[in-house]
Amino acid sequence: MSSSPKYQYKNLLVHIHPEGVAHVELNRPKRLNAINEALVEDIRVCFTALGQDKDIRAIVLSGAGRTFTSGLDFKDNFLLKGEADTDVARRAYTKQNHIKWFQSAMSALEKCAQPVIVAMHYGVYGVAVDLCTAGDIRYGTKDSFYTVKEVDMGLAPDVGTLQRLPKVIGSDSLARELCYTGRNMYADEAYRCGLISKIFDTKEQMIEDALKTAKIIASKSPVAVVSSKHLLNYSRDHSVDEGLEYTAVWNSAMLMTEDIPKSVEAFMTKKPATYSKL
Amino acid sequence: MSSSPKYQYKNLLVHIHPEGVAHVELNRPKRLNAINEALVEDIRVCFTALGQDKDIRAIVLSGAGRTFTSGLDFKDNFLLKGEADTDVARRAYTKQNHIKWFQSAMSALEKCAQPVIVAMHYGVYGVAVDLCTAGDIRYGTKDSFYTVKEVDMGLAPDVGTLQRLPKVIGSDSLARELCYTGRNMYADEAYRCGLISKIFDTKEQMIEDALKTAKIIASKSPVAVVSSKHLLNYSRDHSVDEGLEYTAVWNSAMLMTEDIPKSVEAFMTKKPATYSKL
Amino acid sequence: MSSSPKYQYKNLLVHIHPEGVAHVELNRPKRLNAINEALVEDIRVCFTALGQDKDIRAIVLSGAGRTFTSGLDFKDNFLLKGEADTDVARRAYTKQNHIKWFQSAMSALEKCAQPVIVAMHYGVYGVAVDLCTAGDIRYGTKDSFYTVKEVDMGLAPDVGTLQRLPKVIGSDSLARELCYTGRNMYADEAYRCGLISKIFDTKEQMIEDALKTAKIIASKSPVAVVSSKHLLNYSRDHSVDEGLEYTAVWNSAMLMTEDIPKSVEAFMTKKPATYSKL
Amino acid sequence: MSSSPKYQYKNLLVHIHPEGVAHVELNRPKRLNAINEALVEDIRVCFTALGQDKDIRAIVLSGAGRTFTSGLDFKDNFLLKGEADTDVARRAYTKQNHIKWFQSAMSALEKCAQPVIVAMHYGVYGVAVDLCTAGDIRYGTKDSFYTVKEVDMGLAPDVGTLQRLPKVIGSDSLARELCYTGRNMYADEAYRCGLISKIFDTKEQMIEDALKTAKIIASKSPVAVVSSKHLLNYSRDHSVDEGLEYTAVWNSAMLMTEDIPKSVEAFMTKKPATYSKL
Amino acid sequence: MSSSPKYQYKNLLVHIHPEGVAHVELNRPKRLNAINEALVEDIRVCFTALGQDKDIRAIVLSGAGRTFTSGLDFKDNFLLKGEADTDVARRAYTKQNHIKWFQSAMSALEKCAQPVIVAMHYGVYGVAVDLCTAGDIRYGTKDSFYTVKEVDMGLAPDVGTLQRLPKVIGSDSLARELCYTGRNMYADEAYRCGLISKIFDTKEQMIEDALKTAKIIASKSPVAVVSSKHLLNYSRDHSVDEGLEYTAVWNSAMLMTEDIPKSVEAFMTKKPATYSKL
Amino acid sequence: MSSSPKYQYKNLLVHIHPEGVAHVELNRPKRLNAINEALVEDIRVCFTALGQDKDIRAIVLSGAGRTFTSGLDFKDNFLLKGEADTDVARRAYTKQNHIKWFQSAMSALEKCAQPVIVAMHYGVYGVAVDLCTAGDIRYGTKDSFYTVKEVDMGLAPDVGTLQRLPKVIGSDSLARELCYTGRNMYADEAYRCGLISKIFDTKEQMIEDALKTAKIIASKSPVAVVSSKHLLNYSRDHSVDEGLEYTAVWNSAMLMTEDIPKSVEAFMTKKPATYSKL
Repeated sequence: MSSSPKYQYKNLLVHIHPEGVAHVELNRPKRLNAINEALVEDIRVCFTALGQDKDIRAIVLSGAGRTFTSGLDFKDNFLLKGEADTDVARRAYTKQNHIKWFQSAMSALEKCAQPVIVAMHYGVYGVAVDLCTAGDIRYGTKDSFYTVKEVDMGLAPDVGTLQRLPKVIGSDSLARELCYTGRNMYADEAYRCGLISKIFDTKEQMIEDALKTAKIIASKSPVAVVSSKHLLNYSRDHSVDEGLEYTAVWNSAMLMTEDIPKSVEAFMTKKPATYSKL
Repeated sequence: MSSSPKYQYKNLLVHIHPEGVAHVELNRPKRLNAINEALVEDIRVCFTALGQDKDIRAIVLSGAGRTFTSGLDFKDNFLLKGEADTDVARRAYTKQNHIKWFQSAMSALEKCAQPVIVAMHYGVYGVAVDLCTAGDIRYGTKDSFYTVKEVDMGLAPDVGTLQRLPKVIGSDSLARELCYTGRNMYADEAYRCGLISKIFDTKEQMIEDALKTAKIIASKSPVAVVSSKHLLNYSRDHSVDEGLEYTAVWNSAMLMTEDIPKSVEAFMTKKPATYSKL
Repeated sequence: MSSSPKYQYKNLLVHIHPEGVAHVELNRPKRLNAINEALVEDIRVCFTALGQDKDIRAIVLSGAGRTFTSGLDFKDNFLLKGEADTDVARRAYTKQNHIKWFQSAMSALEKCAQPVIVAMHYGVYGVAVDLCTAGDIRYGTKDSFYTVKEVDMGLAPDVGTLQRLPKVIGSDSLARELCYTGRNMYADEAYRCGLISKIFDTKEQMIEDALKTAKIIASKSPVAVVSSKHLLNYSRDHSVDEGLEYTAVWNSAMLMTEDIPKSVEAFMTKKPATYSKL
Repeated sequence: MSSSPKYQYKNLLVHIHPEGVAHVELNRPKRLNAINEALVEDIRVCFTALGQDKDIRAIVLSGAGRTFTSGLDFKDNFLLKGEADTDVARRAYTKQNHIKWFQSAMSALEKCAQPVIVAMHYGVYGVAVDLCTAGDIRYGTKDSFYTVKEVDMGLAPDVGTLQRLPKVIGSDSLARELCYTGRNMYADEAYRCGLISKIFDTKEQMIEDALKTAKIIASKSPVAVVSSKHLLNYSRDHSVDEGLEYTAVWNSAMLMTEDIPKSVEAFMTKKPATYSKL
Repeated sequence: MSSSPKYQYKNLLVHIHPEGVAHVELNRPKRLNAINEALVEDIRVCFTALGQDKDIRAIVLSGAGRTFTSGLDFKDNFLLKGEADTDVARRAYTKQNHIKWFQSAMSALEKCAQPVIVAMHYGVYGVAVDLCTAGDIRYGTKDSFYTVKEVDMGLAPDVGTLQRLPKVIGSDSLARELCYTGRNMYADEAYRCGLISKIFDTKEQMIEDALKTAKIIASKSPVAVVSSKHLLNYSRDHSVDEGLEYTAVWNSAMLMTEDIPKSVEAFMTKKPATYSKL
Repeated sequence: MSSSPKYQYKNLLVHIHPEGVAHVELNRPKRLNAINEALVEDIRVCFTALGQDKDIRAIVLSGAGRTFTSGLDFKDNFLLKGEADTDVARRAYTKQNHIKWFQSAMSALEKCAQPVIVAMHYGVYGVAVDLCTAGDIRYGTKDSFYTVKEVDMGLAPDVGTLQRLPKVIGSDSLARELCYTGRNMYADEAYRCGLISKIFDTKEQMIEDALKTAKIIASKSPVAVVSSKHLLNYSRDHSVDEGLEYTAVWNSAMLMTEDIPKSVEAFMTKKPATYSKL
C-alpha cells in the first residue's frame, strides 16, 4: 500500500485504508524515529488534518523500522529555543510558547475527532511516552519497553507524561517510580499496569490487529464513535455530575441521528449498517 | 424470603433482611431484565427511598432469572421521547430532560446514603454497565460478561458509563477500547482490570457472599459507613486538598458521635457493638 | 549508622546517608509504633524541615521494630480534643482545627519537595494507610497487610485515605470494599491493585532496595526530580489541559538550568553527572 | 384577577396572566409574610412546578400586604429539627438534610426554566435576601430595605446569601459589611450597588413594571429566553472557556429552531412573531 | 495615517503607530460594520497575528463610519452552516464547530498578548457586545448604546456575552435584564454599571484618549504588561489561591528581567526607561 | 491606648480594645510605612496569631503617620532574593518560594478567622493594594488614592492584586486600566467602584468609625461571624452549588450552638446577648 497523496509529510508516512482507517507511521527509520522539530510539527499538522477529514474514522500510529522511537533527537537544537535572548524573562517567554507548541502537537492525538490506536515495538523512549499516552488505545509487542527518560536529561517531562500517565495506568506508585528513576518498564509490566491493553509476539501481528480493531471502529456509527471519544475526554477532566450534565446536552442533539434507527435495524436483521460520514 | 410490603414495584423485588440489608432484584426475568421506562423509574424511586430509610444499612442489587440484564428494552419506545415535536430545538429540549431523568435513576445508586453491592451474572449489557458503575462494589460470576453496547446502537452511552467506567478500572486504554468497539469483556478480564473485585463460580455463591459482605457493613457504625461513602464520592470529584478540607468540616460534627466510644469499648472488650440507627 | 544530630525527634529516628538520602523511622517500637499526638507532630515538623533541606534529595520512611505501625494510639486521648467545650459549635470548631492539623502532618509527605518511598512491613493499620498514601512510592514485605480500620472505630477516615487511596490503586470497587468493611488486604492483593509497586521477602531486603532506589533518585538532577514531583501532584488535581499549561510556565524557567547540558554531556560520555544542590 | 386553580398553596397566591406570566405572591400578610416551614415547602413545590409548565414564560414574585417579608418565622420551630436526637452526629446529619431541603427551595427560583423577577417593598429581612438573590432580576420600592439578619440570630446565612450576594452586587467590601453587621441597606444604596436594578415610588408602580417586563420576556422566543437563563447560570459557575464550550454544544441543537426564521421574519416585517411553547 | 502594509484585510483597517500601538478599525462603513463571515475571520486572523507581533504593545479597536457595528449581517447566510445536512446529528456537529470558530474569533481579543481598548460610538448591537466584552478596557461616546439583541433573533448569545458580561459589570440583575429583554442600555447606565470605564462627548475625543492610553501602556515594560494581562485572565477563571500559585510560578522567571532594574533606575532618576521588545 | 504586650512587633503597633477588637497599625512612619521584608514577616506573624486568639473578634488595620503606605521599600533588597545563584532554574526556585512567602503574608488577612477592616488614608501604593484587597471591608479618607504601581517597576503584581482586585470592584474594565497604566485612582472613584465602602473627611473620623464597626461585629455571636467570613471566602472560590453544599455541612454542626437561643432571647427581650468566646 502506497502512501496517501493527500497526506504527504517529510517525517511521517500515511496510508489510507479504504475502510476509513488512516495508518500513520513515524518515518525516520535511519535515525530510529528520533523526534526532531520537523517531526513534531508534522505530527501536529497531520493529526489536526486527519481530525477534520470526515472520510477517516479511526487512526493507527506506529513507527517504521527497528523501533517505535528513540525519543528526542539531540542533534536537533530546538530545545535551545530562545537561548539567544539576553534577558531571562524574554527567554522564559519564548520557551513557554515553544513548550505550548510542542504540547499542542502531542495533544493533537487527543483532540482529533477519531480514536487513535498507538502500536509500539521495541523502544518507547522519553517523549514517546508523552506521545503514546495522548492516544486512545495502546498496544505493544513483547519486546517493547517504556522509559520516562526526561529525568536523565535534567528536566521534568513537559509535554504530557506527568498529566496523562498516572491517569492511564492503575498505580500512582508505579507512575512516580518510573518518572523519578527513568528505569525501563518492559512489556509485561506495561500490560499488567494497563499502559498497553494488548501484547503481541511480533510487530506484524500487532499492526494487523491494530488495523483490524481500527476497521471495526470504522464500521460503527461515526456519530457514536466521535461522541464517545469527545465525552470520554471531557469526563476525565470533570466531576461525574458535570460529565453527566454535559453529556445530556451533547446527546440531546445526537440522539436525533438517523444512525440509531439504522443501527437498530441492523441489529434486528443481523445485517451490517452503512453509515454516512459525519 | 418474601418481598417487603414497604417496597413494592412492578419490576423490582425487594427483600429486607433483619440485619438491615436490602436485597433488590431486577425482576423482569421473562424479558431477561431488559430495561424499559418503568424499570428505570422503579430504580429511581426505590433507591431514593432506600437511601432515606434509616433501617437499611447496606444494599445488594442483582438480577432475577437467567441474566443480570440484557440492556435496553427495544420494545419500549421511550428513547423516542420528544420525536413528535416538529421543531428540532424543542425536541432537543425534551430529550435533554429525558436523559437527565434517566441519569438520575442510575445515579440514585451513587447518591443513596448506604453502600450498594452490585452482584452480576451472565450478561451485563449496555445500560447495565452504566447501572453497575454507579454502585460501590461490584461482584461477578465467572460466566459474567460486560458489554458497552451503545456504540452498536449508533449512540454514545449517556447515563454514566463514559463518566464512571474509566474512574473505576485501572486502564484508560481498555476503557476506551470497550467503548469504541462494543466487544464483550469476560469475567477474568473484568476482575483483572478491577471492574469487579470478586469472582464466583455460581450466582448462588455470589449472592451469598454479597449478602454476607452487606451484613458485615450493616454491623458497623452507620455514622462511619454513611460518612465514608459520602466522602469517597466527594473526594473522587475534587482535588485532594479540597477533599481534605470538606472532610475536616464533615467530621468536626461526626467525631462527636457516641459510636466512637461504643466502638472503642467493643474493640477493647472484643464484644460486638450495637449502634443506633442514623 | 547513627541518627542525624540535625534531625532529633522523640518518636522518629532520622539517618542521613551521604548520597543525599534521609531515612526516617517511626520509632516507638515498644508501642508497635502506635501513632500518638507527639508522633503526628514529629512527622509534620520533620517532613517540613526535610522538604526545605537542599542536601536531601530523596527520603525513605519505614517503621522500627516488629511492625510498620499499629495505627492510632488509643492510650493517647488527643481524639477527644475540644470535648471540654460545653457548646457543640465551639467543640466542632476545635475539632475541625485539630483534624486540619492532623491532615497537614500526613500531607507533609506529599508537600515536601523530594520523593518519599514508604517501605512497610507487617501491620499497616488504620491511620498508617492515610500516611502511606501521602508518599510517592510504596513498597511492602510479603507479610505486610493493610487495613482501613477507621470504620471499626465508628468514624470515617479523615486524614487522607478517602482522598488518596482510590487515586493510587486501580479499582474503585476494591477501595470502597476496604473502607466499608475494615478487612485486611494482604501483600499480594496490595501489589496486584497497585498500592505497593514492589514486594519483598524480608524487611531487610525491602529497606535495602528502598534505599537503593532513593540513592538512584538522589543521583539525578534535583531540578528534574523536584519538578517532576511538584508537577505530578499538581496534575493529579487538575484537568489535563490545566496541568499542561501550568507545566509550560513552570518549565519555562526550569529548562534554563545547567543540569540539562550537564545531563546531555553525561549521556554522551557515559560518565555520571554531578549536580549542584537546588 | 383571581388565583390560578392549578397553583393552589396555603401560603402562596399564584395568578396566571394570559400572556404567559405567573405572578406569585408570598401570602401570609397577617404574619408579615414570615417564612415558616410550610411556606418554604410551598416555594419549593410551586417554582418546581412552574419551571416545568410550558405555558409559563416569565415569573414575578412579590409579597402580599405591608412588607415583602419579615424573615424567618420564629414561632415555627423548624430550625430545631433533629434536636431530639441525643447523639450529636445523628443530630448533625438530620440538620444537614434539613438545610439542604431549605436550600433547594430557595434555589428553585434559580433552577426553574423561566426568568424570575423579584419585586420587593418595605422589609426584605434575613432569609428574604437568600430568596431574592436566587431570582434573576430584582426591583425595589424606594421604601424597601435589605437586611442580612442572620448574624443577629447567632448563625451564618446558609440558604444562599453568602454564595449569591457577592456575585450579584459590585462590591465585596459592602457585601461583607452587610453580612457581619446585620445593618439595614436602604433602597438607594441597593440600587447603587446593583442589588436591585430599578427603583419605584410605590409598590403598585413596581408590580406594574415588573409585570410589563415579564410580559416583554414572555413575548420573546422561549428557546432564546430559557437558553439564556440556563447558560447564564452555567457560565457564572465556570471559567469563560468552559462556559463557551458548553454553550457551543447547547446551541448546536438550539440554533436549528424555527424561532430564528420566525424572528428574522418579524424583524424584517416589523410584525410581532408568535412562538410555540417550548 | 495610512494603513499598515503588514496587516491588510478586506474588512479591517489597521494603522500602526510608531509608539507600538495598533489601531484596528471595523471597516464596512457602508454596511454599518455589520458582521459577516469574512469580518469574523478577519478579526480572528488579525488579532492572532497582532498577539504574536513583538513590535505591538497595545491595541485600540474602533469602528469606521457612523456606528461601531450594527451587529450580525443578516444578508450573510453563515448562520445557516450545516443546514444542508439531512441528518440532525451531523447538522448539529457542523453547527457546533462553526460556533467554536466564531467564539475563537471573539476570544482572539482576550487571548492576544497585549491589552485591547475597545472604543465604541453609537450602536453596539448584538454580537458587538460579545466582541467588546472580550477586550480589556471599554470606552464609549455619550451617544453610544448597547443591546444584547440575540433574544430578538430567537437565540441565546453564544459567542461570549453570557460568559463575560456578568463578569465585567457590577450587577447580575442588570446583566440578566439586558439579555432577556434585548433593551437598549445607554451610555450613562453603561458607565455607571462599569461596562465602559470612560465616557466621551465625541468619537474623535474618544479615539484620541484611547490612543493616548494605549501609548501609555506601550511605554511600560512589556514583561509587566503582558504578564498582567495573562495573569488577570487566568485569575478571573480560578480561585484566589490557584491564581496566586500560578502567579508565583510565572513570576519566578519574570522577576529576573532586566526591566526591573531599568524601571527602578527610571523611577529614581525620573527619566523614562526604554524597554526591549518581548 | 498603649500597645499590647502580647503583640509586640518592630514594624507594627497593636492595640487591644476591651471589646475584643485589635487595632493594628503599620508603624514605620518615618519611612512612610514602606514595606520591607521585616514588615511583611510581621504582618504574616501578627495576623496568624490574631486569627487564633479567641479573645479577638474583629480587627482594624491602618497606617501610622502621614500615609497608609508608600509601597515596597526599595532600600530593602529582598526582591533580589536568589540572585546569587548562578543557575537560572535554582534562582527561579528560590524566587518562587520567596513570592509564596510574601503571598502568605498578604493572605494572612484573608485566612485569619475574624473580619479585617482596612482603613486607609493618603497614599495606598503598589503592594498596599495587594494588602488591602485581602481584607474584608475597606474604608478610605477623601484624600486617599490607590495605585497599582507594579507596572512602573517592570513587573506584574504577584501578591494578590491581580487575583482579588477584579473580584472586589464592579468593573473589570477599570481594574485592567488601573493595572496596565499604573495611574492613581482617587477616593471618589474608589468609592463609586466599590473598592472602599465608606469615605471620610479625616483619618480620625475614619478610624473612629472603623473601630465602631469593629466593635459592632465584636458584639455579635463569634460562631456567626467567623462562620460567615469562612463561608464567604469559600463561596467566592466555588460554584454556587458547591458553596451551598459546603455550607450545609458546616452549619450542620454550627446550628447546634447555644448562641442561637441566646440571640433569639436577646431579640425577644431587646437586651444584648453575651456570647462566650469561640
